[in-house]
Amino acid sequence: MARKFVSMRNLKFLLYEVFDVLELTEYPYFKQHNRKMFDMVLDAALKLATKLMWPIFEEMDRKPPELVAGEVKVHPQVGKMMKEFGEGGWIGATFPTQYDGEQMPLLVASCCNMMFSAANYSASAFVGLGSGAARLITSFADDNLKETYVENILMGRWQGTMALTEPQAGSSLTDICTMAESTGEGYYHINGRKIFISAGDHNGVENIIHLMLAKIEGGPPGVKGVSLFIVPKKRIDENGQLVSNDIVTSQIFHKMGYRGTPITELSIGEKGDCRGYLVGEPHKGLIYMFQMMNEERIGVGLAATAIASAAYYAALEYSKERLQGRKLLTKDPLTPQVSIIEHADVKRMLLFQRAVVEGSLSLLMQCSKYEDMQKGVSVEEKEKYALLLDLLTPVAKTYPSEMGILSTSQSIQCFGGYGYCEDFPVEQYYRDMRIHPIHEGTTGIQGIDLLGRKIIMKNGKAFALFLEEVEKIINAAKQIPALKTLAEQLDDALKKLQMVTIHLTSIAQKKGPEVFLADATIYLELFGIVSIAWQWLLQAIAAQKAMQDDLSAAESNFYQGKYYTCRYFFGYELPKIMGLVKRLTDTDSLTVEMEAKFFAD
Amino acid sequence: MARKFVSMRNLKFLLYEVFDVLELTEYPYFKQHNRKMFDMVLDAALKLATKLMWPIFEEMDRKPPELVAGEVKVHPQVGKMMKEFGEGGWIGATFPTQYDGEQMPLLVASCCNMMFSAANYSASAFVGLGSGAARLITSFADDNLKETYVENILMGRWQGTMALTEPQAGSSLTDICTMAESTGEGYYHINGRKIFISAGDHNGVENIIHLMLAKIEGGPPGVKGVSLFIVPKKRIDENGQLVSNDIVTSQIFHKMGYRGTPITELSIGEKGDCRGYLVGEPHKGLIYMFQMMNEERIGVGLAATAIASAAYYAALEYSKERLQGRKLLTKDPLTPQVSIIEHADVKRMLLFQRAVVEGSLSLLMQCSKYEDMQKGVSVEEKEKYALLLDLLTPVAKTYPSEMGILSTSQSIQCFGGYGYCEDFPVEQYYRDMRIHPIHEGTTGIQGIDLLGRKIIMKNGKAFALFLEEVEKIINAAKQIPALKTLAEQLDDALKKLQMVTIHLTSIAQKKGPEVFLADATIYLELFGIVSIAWQWLLQAIAAQKAMQDDLSAAESNFYQGKYYTCRYFFGYELPKIMGLVKRLTDTDSLTVEMEAKFFAD
Repeated sequence: MARKFVSMRNLKFLLYEVFDVLELTEYPYFKQHNRKMFDMVLDAALKLATKLMWPIFEEMDRKPPELVAGEVKVHPQVGKMMKEFGEGGWIGATFPTQYDGEQMPLLVASCCNMMFSAANYSASAFVGLGSGAARLITSFADDNLKETYVENILMGRWQGTMALTEPQAGSSLTDICTMAESTGEGYYHINGRKIFISAGDHNGVENIIHLMLAKIEGGPPGVKGVSLFIVPKKRIDENGQLVSNDIVTSQIFHKMGYRGTPITELSIGEKGDCRGYLVGEPHKGLIYMFQMMNEERIGVGLAATAIASAAYYAALEYSKERLQGRKLLTKDPLTPQVSIIEHADVKRMLLFQRAVVEGSLSLLMQCSKYEDMQKGVSVEEKEKYALLLDLLTPVAKTYPSEMGILSTSQSIQCFGGYGYCEDFPVEQYYRDMRIHPIHEGTTGIQGIDLLGRKIIMKNGKAFALFLEEVEKIINAAKQIPALKTLAEQLDDALKKLQMVTIHLTSIAQKKGPEVFLADATIYLELFGIVSIAWQWLLQAIAAQKAMQDDLSAAESNFYQGKYYTCRYFFGYELPKIMGLVKRLTDTDSLTVEMEAKFFAD
Repeated sequence: MARKFVSMRNLKFLLYEVFDVLELTEYPYFKQHNRKMFDMVLDAALKLATKLMWPIFEEMDRKPPELVAGEVKVHPQVGKMMKEFGEGGWIGATFPTQYDGEQMPLLVASCCNMMFSAANYSASAFVGLGSGAARLITSFADDNLKETYVENILMGRWQGTMALTEPQAGSSLTDICTMAESTGEGYYHINGRKIFISAGDHNGVENIIHLMLAKIEGGPPGVKGVSLFIVPKKRIDENGQLVSNDIVTSQIFHKMGYRGTPITELSIGEKGDCRGYLVGEPHKGLIYMFQMMNEERIGVGLAATAIASAAYYAALEYSKERLQGRKLLTKDPLTPQVSIIEHADVKRMLLFQRAVVEGSLSLLMQCSKYEDMQKGVSVEEKEKYALLLDLLTPVAKTYPSEMGILSTSQSIQCFGGYGYCEDFPVEQYYRDMRIHPIHEGTTGIQGIDLLGRKIIMKNGKAFALFLEEVEKIINAAKQIPALKTLAEQLDDALKKLQMVTIHLTSIAQKKGPEVFLADATIYLELFGIVSIAWQWLLQAIAAQKAMQDDLSAAESNFYQGKYYTCRYFFGYELPKIMGLVKRLTDTDSLTVEMEAKFFAD
């Protein structure tokens, strides 16, 4: 029996009571779905997570992939898992029926992905990459490429990857120097080196399909010369056989966590015989890639949330069972010890974890719904939800990733010394978590993306839409007596966020981009807290609504827990914005003025 | 050549320019010392750290101790190290000459310990435990016990340990159930089980000497019945031979980090033949043990600072070398990439690490000086500095431990993906760090110690002394134009801390201990930030003073760096108290009211 790693009750609360997924079934695209089907999907996903992924959670960490004689050997279960996920329709669940997909709302798919990542993050990464890569191909590649690759990836026979990073070009994609030389025969010769490619090679599938950025010889410098290619590990020869495409895995990286997924370095075209197939038009690679990148960024936020969820439930279970100390009013050593969950400080730590996990999940569900709502019919609505999703992507990637570190750290803390030992899973969650503020764009990059691009794009239209969305919830909460004070607090916080935004954009004009963006990371942190407060208020409204009915004891406890966790967030987390606002309106540009040489010695 | 892990320049700055260690040489106890000797000691310590400890930093992690046929095998270098540290006088450096000690000021010894822990925390733990155990014996044991144990421990032949924790009694020492039965023959029979005993057994020394808490049969219940015993692994028989004392290492714990030190579970007296020797009077064990405990708590703070220091210098070096991206005003992809240290966000991350490391170190040096100043002659002064040290111990343990997690996390972040890989040391620092908020009393315990005990003891006398100490520095800084604004900010922060303290102590009377202490951890966080701001202002005063002279470029850079880092702390870290003050003055006792059952599902 697996330890609990997610709350199905909470997933259904978000799906049906907060985000009303059934509303989506009125859209033509989703019309074949109904609640019964969604429930079945959720149950099946939990079963898969529990039976297939959870049992190898620890093993995949303790016996990480190995590079043996040029071949990357992963846990033997990975192959079986890819097959089951492919044949079960999980990799292609959200895809249109023309690709044999289910046209599943992302809201529902996100719940499933949450369960997969919570059960075993390393295992889930293989699956997630397949979806993203296949979607990129269906969006931009020609029919011939679609036919060759999409079905194979969605069926789990071939692994999709995202191959961007190079040794000299981590965050700076402008400096990519993998080259593509046109042959005039429908393919390019690719030559270069990629690092940190997740699932970039392994023996759990027949083939690996890299969605790779490279520069076409003679193209413009910088990002304007970056193109997107499909570069398979094995290409199909004239006889329809898979043959080597001259990609060598030169090393796999040994990591602190996330150890079950091989992160590879690839040498591409060393023998001059690596063929890549252009996706879409030349020099538009970065624009295309951002579709997959954004999807993966939401995926990172979701995975961080999932890991924090699993750690939280481990800590919760332990806190209920572990006897230690006494209530402060009954210090008599002859009385029995109490469960540590009875101590206010432990409850505070658990509330923190729950606030982070369920707040983050709510924001990610909100993003999923914005994605789903782009399947609506009006152009205006499509643009609105696309803008909101665009704006919130760096936030939904970063808040769960950064706060997930603190949340899993508090999970360890609930266990005391045991939490630091390998006998309990929380130390692995802590290690697995640490990758998230790094991969798919570091927190620093997300900050610049939010403040330097998303806030100012289209004259601040996305930000204005965001303010509207939050205000709508504030106004609704003001009508509910139990939430009135919280609504006013969020109102105040939102006004502060607006004030800071205006302040910073005016600095951009006066002092230039460097000073403007110097504290973009801090701005992102502020934005994250306000966003999660919004999501908690949204959840509290749903909980208050439910509490008007006659409820079973279990249901009442669930909603009371929601209400307390919301109050926790507003009482302990939201006040953190005060210090951030102070900093962001401070005129001392010391991080710009600080000179590298002052770090000397 | 070892990578840089500490700044000797900074140690000397603190020692001579900030804390004026030479002032101590006017005390009779320290009169044989002078600057030349201190400098020699520092150089020798750095050499030892570099030659003996650093080379096995990674190895001790990758090949952790093993329990083989009842014997704990540690890294083969540990034995050599204990010998060199013992014979070199390092374990007993601060001890009086009567024990062959050097009567070294703790200020200087702390600098040495900082270097040892920065070079290799696991290795340094063996040494630190010896000092603490020996001091406990010299303070409270009878001459016979002193003669048998002190020299052997200080010479590094025998390992000292601190044996408190039991499976059912982690933070709750009242529930210890290891028993001691008087034999009337000068020793007790000890029987019980201890867990998480650091260096509790290993083959690097001849013998292990446990300073162990146990209850004497028939004594009062709870902490009032806890006594302190010396319980050796091997006792000396009538022929002067070391023979087994019936202690079995039943397991060693496998940990996420701090892997080089064996953390053991001990079965004591299974055969009824384990002898323990009472230290001091019966039932006073906890009072005695707190001497060692407090010393070890300061040691934990120092070790956390040391690990963060090593991680910071690794990140600094990398940030100077690693080319990535361009300044925001020169986006032309044809220009060369710049070192990432040129980016404001990276400078912010480095300033954060430096602020945490050098701020924490300063606070620990302050505590060391308070310890040293108790060697003064007047009773009043002794009491004053003892109270200040008592008050600051939970702060000096916790701030570096909790912030060290964030600091080493930012070190990883500077490396990007490489930081997550085993090729660089920062991932190990991150893992090694995580034990510190747990061992020697968790952060939650430290919070209760500060607010529930230290603040209110002697009618708030220690807190009043603390306020005086900080105000003295504020007033001095107000006289210096460059520091006036910072001084006013600290003045304001100190008033807020006072206000919160009064608010909370009034709650204690009105609402009882549970509500009073519910947010003790948050109070500790507030206290920590104010304390570090105080230390930064103190350092900035010394830096400003130095900058009045003609300086070499290197010296000028050092002091400029100090000044910027101080401004960083006041600009980015000090504002965090706003949110904490808000929370601490909030009247919603939600963590007390939250019921365990609301966490259900």
